Amino acid sequence: MNAGLRVLVLGATGAVGQEFLRIFEKRGLPIASLRLLASARSAGSTLEFKGEPVVVEEARADAFAGSDVAFFSAGASRSREFAPAAIEAGAVVIDNSSAFRMDPGVPLVVPEINAHAIEPSHRLVANPNCTAIVLLMAIAPLRALGHIERVIVSTYQSASGGGAAVMQELIDQTRAYLDGRPIEPRVLPHPYAFNLFSHNTPVNEQGYNEEEWKVIQESRKILGRPDLRVNVTCVRVPVLRAHAEAITVEFSGPAPTEDAVRQVLAEAPGVRVVDDRVGNHFPMPIESSGTDDVLVGRIRADVTDPNAICLFATGDQLLKGAALNAVQIAEAMIASGSIGTATVRQ
Amino acid sequence: MNAGLRVLVLGATGAVGQEFLRIFEKRGLPIASLRLLASARSAGSTLEFKGEPVVVEEARADAFAGSDVAFFSAGASRSREFAPAAIEAGAVVIDNSSAFRMDPGVPLVVPEINAHAIEPSHRLVANPNCTAIVLLMAIAPLRALGHIERVIVSTYQSASGGGAAVMQELIDQTRAYLDGRPIEPRVLPHPYAFNLFSHNTPVNEQGYNEEEWKVIQESRKILGRPDLRVNVTCVRVPVLRAHAEAITVEFSGPAPTEDAVRQVLAEAPGVRVVDDRVGNHFPMPIESSGTDDVLVGRIRADVTDPNAICLFATGDQLLKGAALNAVQIAEAMIASGSIGTATVRQ
Repeated sequence: MNAGLRVLVLGATGAVGQEFLRIFEKRGLPIASLRLLASARSAGSTLEFKGEPVVVEEARADAFAGSDVAFFSAGASRSREFAPAAIEAGAVVIDNSSAFRMDPGVPLVVPEINAHAIEPSHRLVANPNCTAIVLLMAIAPLRALGHIERVIVSTYQSASGGGAAVMQELIDQTRAYLDGRPIEPRVLPHPYAFNLFSHNTPVNEQGYNEEEWKVIQESRKILGRPDLRVNVTCVRVPVLRAHAEAITVEFSGPAPTEDAVRQVLAEAPGVRVVDDRVGNHFPMPIESSGTDDVLVGRIRADVTDPNAICLFATGDQLLKGAALNAVQIAEAMIASGSIGTATVRQ
Repeated sequence: MNAGLRVLVLGATGAVGQEFLRIFEKRGLPIASLRLLASARSAGSTLEFKGEPVVVEEARADAFAGSDVAFFSAGASRSREFAPAAIEAGAVVIDNSSAFRMDPGVPLVVPEINAHAIEPSHRLVANPNCTAIVLLMAIAPLRALGHIERVIVSTYQSASGGGAAVMQELIDQTRAYLDGRPIEPRVLPHPYAFNLFSHNTPVNEQGYNEEEWKVIQESRKILGRPDLRVNVTCVRVPVLRAHAEAITVEFSGPAPTEDAVRQVLAEAPGVRVVDDRVGNHFPMPIESSGTDDVLVGRIRADVTDPNAICLFATGDQLLKGAALNAVQIAEAMIASGSIGTATVRQ
């Protein structure tokens, strides 16, 4: 009776939070009890899990007792505020925010790539930035074919990366544009309907925005390659869901053949090759939306560098880029015994 | 009386065609007479020029007599069909299609960069691909600061690049999506509303699509650099108008400083620097739409290569990417006497 995990989601009403509930059900996570936390504003509302309503509670430091695993997806400041209390209360925290990602004591994990970074003593694991996850799912398998020296990435980031409010802003602005009404940016700094702009995070002294800096630093940490050179430009495009990335990978020697790249990607867990030159069918956000796998295509030798190959990848930012990857981290920790179920703990 | 050019526009009812009329008026092209040609389907309709209606005639081989300059913007097959007749009839043809761009006997011109390529004997001048023009406007000024070895570009191409029908398709599909109706691609091969996809032109054996190949070949020809290495990925994004490009420029030696790049771009004719890091304000399609200048920003040293700098550029594909550049070619030819006005010819 009641065997299974006592699960908690912080930030349950957000775009990522709501995906957690679907993924728990779809993947059959062994759940004994589920608690949903959000800001005071959302407390009292209900979300559905397995056909039953679950009432959302207000996030408070004393709310974490009796949880085995807590999925945090309420932004970095909420994570910093509540992670110590949750861990103190006995939960393993899997944090989707940027708060602890670069903390040397916190593993930053894409399970297909570095599940080994999680040790039994870890009670907090960070979920990487969504853009970094999509990039790394596409390029990590290529390490079997050569030493990667430099990666050049341009991103096409969707509204979902900014959360539910940004998705709604894109819809509202687009409707206003089509109806001939004025567009009034609320959440984002610039008009979004039929427009695009450099990622709306602060720009550092080197001219890189915060999103770009995360991709650089997190890629190095996840791959265990502090020397990896990552040139990245992050751009927000008026797509509702799923990020896209144009990627050039430079190796230290001659690049692997297109066939070798295609084969290693076809065999990589969590990756699906979509690379139909004749049909002009390559990865698209619309086909990535709601899809667990990262789609990779446009596999071609770089005509400007014999050591390089080019790729185009898309991934659902809310799934593999966020909630799915976090649940996979939990699954890996359950498998290794780092997260105990009530049954195991008896 | 009647002094001025006898001007003809082939493809007058298209998205680029209609821009010609506005540009003629705005720039005060000395026009004695204006004739507008289009397909039989559009013949008989009227367009407005300087407040007066002009009736569109059917494009036929015998329609070109008595024109000093003919702007062609009706696609490559129409250009191949009618250019010989127009030249034979005494017109200088400025062709916006890809038909003659790579013909060694035909100059391919961005006036700010290689107006010198036009010789008095030339009766046909090709207007480059829009993506190539935006790229070259951003990078050509940097030649003053060092030898460019390699350019890496990812594009964010708007609907306007596909013409009026593609712009309408984006609007119609988006409205359908927002109204919950099914989306039915007509002109494009893939759903476009809130989606993006690899450029919808045929892919060659090397895995590059036709648009990418044009950018590579045309950039080399315009810069007079057959050795220039251009790595380009062309992507269609759901923006109505103006293309964007993320660009990395690699020099043969240490890259110029950000300040030097900013200064040389600020002084370049046809370029406007939009590079406000504090305000997070960089080039955007919405600010490029209807704007003659190519906007350039995100100027920063490439953290992965001391020889490289990164840029982000936007340009109105219908203006500098098409009609404006063609009119500038005509202006250069008028100035050099290659296109005569009725007055001059007396």
